[in-house]
Amino acid sequence: MLQSQLFVKPLRSFPADEEAQGAKFLVRAGFINKVMAGAYEYLPLGFRTLKKIEQIIREEMDAVGGQELLLTSLQEKQVWEKTGRWSDKEMDVWFKTKLKNDAELGLAATHEEPITAMMKNFISSYRDLPVLAYQFQTKFRNELRAKGGILRTREFLMKDLYSFAKNQEEHEEIYEKLKKAYFKIFKRVGLGEKTFITFASGGSFSKYSHEFQAVADVGEDVIYLDKKKGLAVNKEVFNEETLKDLGLKSENLEEVKAVEVGNIFSLGTRFSEAFGLDYLDEKGEKYPVAMGSYGIGPGRVMGVLAEVFCDEKGLNWPEEVAPFKAHLIELPGGEASIVYQDLLKKGVEVLFDDRKTSAGEKFAEADLLGIPYRLVVSSKTGDKVEVKKRGETKTELVAMTNLLKLLKPIS
Amino acid sequence: MLQSQLFVKPLRSFPADEEAQGAKFLVRAGFINKVMAGAYEYLPLGFRTLKKIEQIIREEMDAVGGQELLLTSLQEKQVWEKTGRWSDKEMDVWFKTKLKNDAELGLAATHEEPITAMMKNFISSYRDLPVLAYQFQTKFRNELRAKGGILRTREFLMKDLYSFAKNQEEHEEIYEKLKKAYFKIFKRVGLGEKTFITFASGGSFSKYSHEFQAVADVGEDVIYLDKKKGLAVNKEVFNEETLKDLGLKSENLEEVKAVEVGNIFSLGTRFSEAFGLDYLDEKGEKYPVAMGSYGIGPGRVMGVLAEVFCDEKGLNWPEEVAPFKAHLIELPGGEASIVYQDLLKKGVEVLFDDRKTSAGEKFAEADLLGIPYRLVVSSKTGDKVEVKKRGETKTELVAMTNLLKLLKPIS
Repeated sequence: MLQSQLFVKPLRSFPADEEAQGAKFLVRAGFINKVMAGAYEYLPLGFRTLKKIEQIIREEMDAVGGQELLLTSLQEKQVWEKTGRWSDKEMDVWFKTKLKNDAELGLAATHEEPITAMMKNFISSYRDLPVLAYQFQTKFRNELRAKGGILRTREFLMKDLYSFAKNQEEHEEIYEKLKKAYFKIFKRVGLGEKTFITFASGGSFSKYSHEFQAVADVGEDVIYLDKKKGLAVNKEVFNEETLKDLGLKSENLEEVKAVEVGNIFSLGTRFSEAFGLDYLDEKGEKYPVAMGSYGIGPGRVMGVLAEVFCDEKGLNWPEEVAPFKAHLIELPGGEASIVYQDLLKKGVEVLFDDRKTSAGEKFAEADLLGIPYRLVVSSKTGDKVEVKKRGETKTELVAMTNLLKLLKPIS
Repeated sequence: MLQSQLFVKPLRSFPADEEAQGAKFLVRAGFINKVMAGAYEYLPLGFRTLKKIEQIIREEMDAVGGQELLLTSLQEKQVWEKTGRWSDKEMDVWFKTKLKNDAELGLAATHEEPITAMMKNFISSYRDLPVLAYQFQTKFRNELRAKGGILRTREFLMKDLYSFAKNQEEHEEIYEKLKKAYFKIFKRVGLGEKTFITFASGGSFSKYSHEFQAVADVGEDVIYLDKKKGLAVNKEVFNEETLKDLGLKSENLEEVKAVEVGNIFSLGTRFSEAFGLDYLDEKGEKYPVAMGSYGIGPGRVMGVLAEVFCDEKGLNWPEEVAPFKAHLIELPGGEASIVYQDLLKKGVEVLFDDRKTSAGEKFAEADLLGIPYRLVVSSKTGDKVEVKKRGETKTELVAMTNLLKLLKPIS
């Protein structure tokens, strides 16, 4: 894309109303725009990164047999009364609204109830199980306090997968498969080394649930991390019993702040029993379906990436989720449009800074946007291109054929 | 995809609460599921078709220089008070809700106000113009009556593009470009021959706006169509003056029912003036930005396709938007899994009916789902595949190499 045509330009100064460093950079670089506390617009660069994270999650959900669908935001009261969660006391983050005839509606903060109700149309026999279904859908949560830019918002995109199994044993198999898929996702988005599976409260369904916590100073959660074992315990269940259950020792644990970037839940039969989602087994006997739910917020992942990889100059995106792979900069005396066309032809995603601004401004902006490879064509580069990776200081003159190999390795 | 693993199965009977034939088939075939009047879930097959329509629209918006972003559903009162549209009298389809501190919020039914407010961050000079920005975002509209399955709903996906130009002349160029892009979109989704540009009320901004109306008996709109000229007039502006303006003659017009599948609007400076979205020209003089808005609802397009192409047996999708290109059916004595693998390798999207149900049931279901090519492998087909197009009766035995050419023509 030609940068001269990108309508987004960096803001002159940092936003006054953001505290977290990553959030400040995201706003200043024009990745996101705040419309109110807890609601952000994704501008073209931010939208590209959001979609890349979404696509990685989609691929891994498809790989474990997830079927994508799209549920609704508008929700009728009756469906949620079946589990008691219509009550604002049970679920304190509802946004509620009304039809013209005064019938109350809610905006979905999660989707266990509607998907269980829908599955009654399709699940009745053991032959229909297991089922894994997921969506990317906006969640609305009326949080008392929104925080950390796009880390905790009142409206956000979420991938939520729901699993339906014949029994606890089949459920556990699915649960383990999803756990592995989540590790793959966090590795691919660039958070692999910073994300730890963390034991947290299982609610009324099971003793523990699993959170995926990314270690970050901006985090609101406190976890106790055994780095060697790659395992952590959320403060909420940090006690003798938990340590014993998990075979952890206090002296090996480190207290760190972290952001919950994903969670997986065993739901047992709470929802299936409330809705009568049963199946008949081979002998014609009726059982309730065993369920699980598995969430990741692509926007929050993006927010964490901004926080943990930024430096004093700006953002620094992992390659798989960067809005573009390369940031091509033309300086006086250089002619970069042939390089641009060559890269496009090879399918390299490149932002081409074709504007007539100064080298200093272009370099500062490249650091702010945080695209992985900075390519410079100037009077000094001859028939080569100067390459610098974001976050490194070393530059290198690279011939075009080698550049293509670097940016588009044969997979 | 293996049909044995698809959780969706056709319902035994038609839904009692749908009137339109296409909507009945969409529900029965498991493309969509109604959660309440005016709110439908998109199940895996329906979701695939929805996404294909979305992708066609995206490609055509990108082709005219549109930049994709994502605005928010939650909206603050103040922004909409600037144009007077916060009032339920001015905009009678608001869903409103509240924050914990009792501050009122609205759910966006359209996005002119927020995008104009946001663009103030980025547009200040003639150098910043023109800008075309678009999104696919859920719209919420508190319609008194929801109708026609997914044709008129209270919650629906919409592509809305907004254009920002220096003056009316530049605006008109963009407007014409978008008009052409819309024709391309309707052609690609399979509605080319049924969709006519239709003059409708321009509201307070201009004399006329343009609607794209697809002729369909299920339509709520009445238009007067000059088929020869490929031009129509909406009943709302059907009078002597309009006919004169457009050079149309009553005797050449046919009264038909139609569904509005898209619309494009010149907005003049109504929004830019309300928000102070000005720019400085080359001489340093200040002018308000000239705006336009351009909408298409992918779900409604899908609903219209279901209506206009269905027959007594079921749905019949145009190739570019079908959930799968081919429906491969294995009958006793045939071995279709090699064909399936071959098609997958060549990148053909294929639904493989690998279940142990009867031939009659499989054929009836294939007709119901409406996938363009039905492929049968049985004891009678030998090393060939029996091919039938949906809606035709002729079958043909085709060798594998020719089948691949048929399904994956080199573009």
